[in-house]
Amino acid sequence: MLGVHAKNPGGPEQLELIDVAVPKPRKGEILIKVHAAALNRTDIITREGKMSYLQNPILGVEVSGTVIDSNGTNFVKDEKVAGLVNGGGYAEYAVMPAERAMRIPDSFTFEEGAAIPEVFLTAYQTLFWHGRLQRRESVLIHAGGSGVGTAAIQLAKQITGAKVMTTAGSKEKLAVCKELGADVLINYKEESFDHEVLKATENQGANVILDFIGAKYWEMNTKSISQEGRWVLIGTLGGSTVEKMNLMTLMSKCVQITGTLLTPRSDQYKADLTKEFMDVAMPLFKQNKIKPIIDRAFSFQDVQKAHQHMEDNKNIGKIILTWD
Amino acid sequence: MLGVHAKNPGGPEQLELIDVAVPKPRKGEILIKVHAAALNRTDIITREGKMSYLQNPILGVEVSGTVIDSNGTNFVKDEKVAGLVNGGGYAEYAVMPAERAMRIPDSFTFEEGAAIPEVFLTAYQTLFWHGRLQRRESVLIHAGGSGVGTAAIQLAKQITGAKVMTTAGSKEKLAVCKELGADVLINYKEESFDHEVLKATENQGANVILDFIGAKYWEMNTKSISQEGRWVLIGTLGGSTVEKMNLMTLMSKCVQITGTLLTPRSDQYKADLTKEFMDVAMPLFKQNKIKPIIDRAFSFQDVQKAHQHMEDNKNIGKIILTWD
Repeated sequence: MLGVHAKNPGGPEQLELIDVAVPKPRKGEILIKVHAAALNRTDIITREGKMSYLQNPILGVEVSGTVIDSNGTNFVKDEKVAGLVNGGGYAEYAVMPAERAMRIPDSFTFEEGAAIPEVFLTAYQTLFWHGRLQRRESVLIHAGGSGVGTAAIQLAKQITGAKVMTTAGSKEKLAVCKELGADVLINYKEESFDHEVLKATENQGANVILDFIGAKYWEMNTKSISQEGRWVLIGTLGGSTVEKMNLMTLMSKCVQITGTLLTPRSDQYKADLTKEFMDVAMPLFKQNKIKPIIDRAFSFQDVQKAHQHMEDNKNIGKIILTWD
Repeated sequence: MLGVHAKNPGGPEQLELIDVAVPKPRKGEILIKVHAAALNRTDIITREGKMSYLQNPILGVEVSGTVIDSNGTNFVKDEKVAGLVNGGGYAEYAVMPAERAMRIPDSFTFEEGAAIPEVFLTAYQTLFWHGRLQRRESVLIHAGGSGVGTAAIQLAKQITGAKVMTTAGSKEKLAVCKELGADVLINYKEESFDHEVLKATENQGANVILDFIGAKYWEMNTKSISQEGRWVLIGTLGGSTVEKMNLMTLMSKCVQITGTLLTPRSDQYKADLTKEFMDVAMPLFKQNKIKPIIDRAFSFQDVQKAHQHMEDNKNIGKIILTWD
């Protein structure tokens, strides 16, 4: 079968399709014919050789497709599923722990299926498990036009009804955020988001912050967070070294900061998260209250272009790869 | 009645006894004849004019004494209680929300009663509410000879049986820590604690860290904490500005950092904490499995000496003030 690896650690030009053996499912795993895979920032870090969680030389952590070998689990052949894989997603076939496979509605395309797992599970764990977002609270979602951002806006609004404040760098992205349910739209290129957050919350600050940015926004996030706020750090697009962090503010505001990535979490964690997500959020997809957001689909032949598109940071929603 | 205030923001020499009116309990509050009050670092910060949570000019956040006016609550006159007050503890009489008053065993002295609330409630909230310490896990407790340290060692051991690792700066302090149940004793003046923690946990690191130190130990704590570890920041004895904080480590280890102080928490929080503590931990006092640790008692007349003694950092356990 064909799969994508990086010849050497480096840029998108390092990616190439190679011929590899079809993987064999182990106990508890199913074999999937991959119809679509989605891009993630973790794929870029893996391509650059900066991440060592995944043993599989084939990139890709989420796919959508049909079950080929249910391997004694409670799935049946040809069922339509999507889910997280431990690497190996950019390929014609992939193995997936059955506990992570999500049955997707028949009405969904494979592109839509592949656009669900990583961003919606990440948004779910950060908003509700780490952020403990409650009704009548407020949440600041940075990078509102990103994959996780678009998922988080919808989940926060539909599940809790909390006040959703979001930042993005263009009118187009903010228009999408609004359509998805965001209440307060902040163009970070034109406004100082900490002022806007304090204004929108009567100086209380945001109860939860989803932070993809890190160092560059540290000081402003510190000002934006409420007493007893939960600050969930899931990216460092704005740098990973904070110069001069004031611990006294964290203590006097009783702030909780949680660093988290989904990929390095244990199999059990991912299985528990998938199960809760299927119970709580999947019905909302079926009722058309939330939807996967797709920016663009590329052919696997154009995987280099797809990675470049993500690095250009212009996408709104997920970037998808499909087999022709 | 007599009470202690600070003439001006400054050192222990600013403290003096003055004559003030006996406070009046409001709805839900009881009036207590104070027999003993305990010192807290928050009293030093208040004396220095660096803390603005407390409106009361009279210092002191925890007392032990007898109920003088139960004010319609379910306490009765002359009951022996201890608990947190919103300032005003360094006085002959103090008011206390009834939801925070803990009945103490008759066998306890008032000095012992006053040595319980702040340190044991702080240790309880940090270990179990924020740290979520579990059986078969490990905890690193810095400043093992301090008030919160001695309380935390006992609670961690008696309630979870977790592996308790502790740091202190003298043989005498470490001997007390051992007697209280600590498994791994680290003299931070002679050993590098991160190496000792990794050695004692087969390179897994501590699942929970109680950090009173802040900046000075930041890097070593980062190395000492486990994957998915909970790091609870409750003091900055080693400085409050971290020069360079690496966010990537927090994310890849999925670490949770919680800054917390007990004093600024809401009345409801303190009431909930007190209730759970009474249910879970108070029986252990009655069974002599845990005990309040008293360093020394001073007369209220010697309040300046008592504050100096705390600032000299030589105490093992709580420093108490009593009325002659």
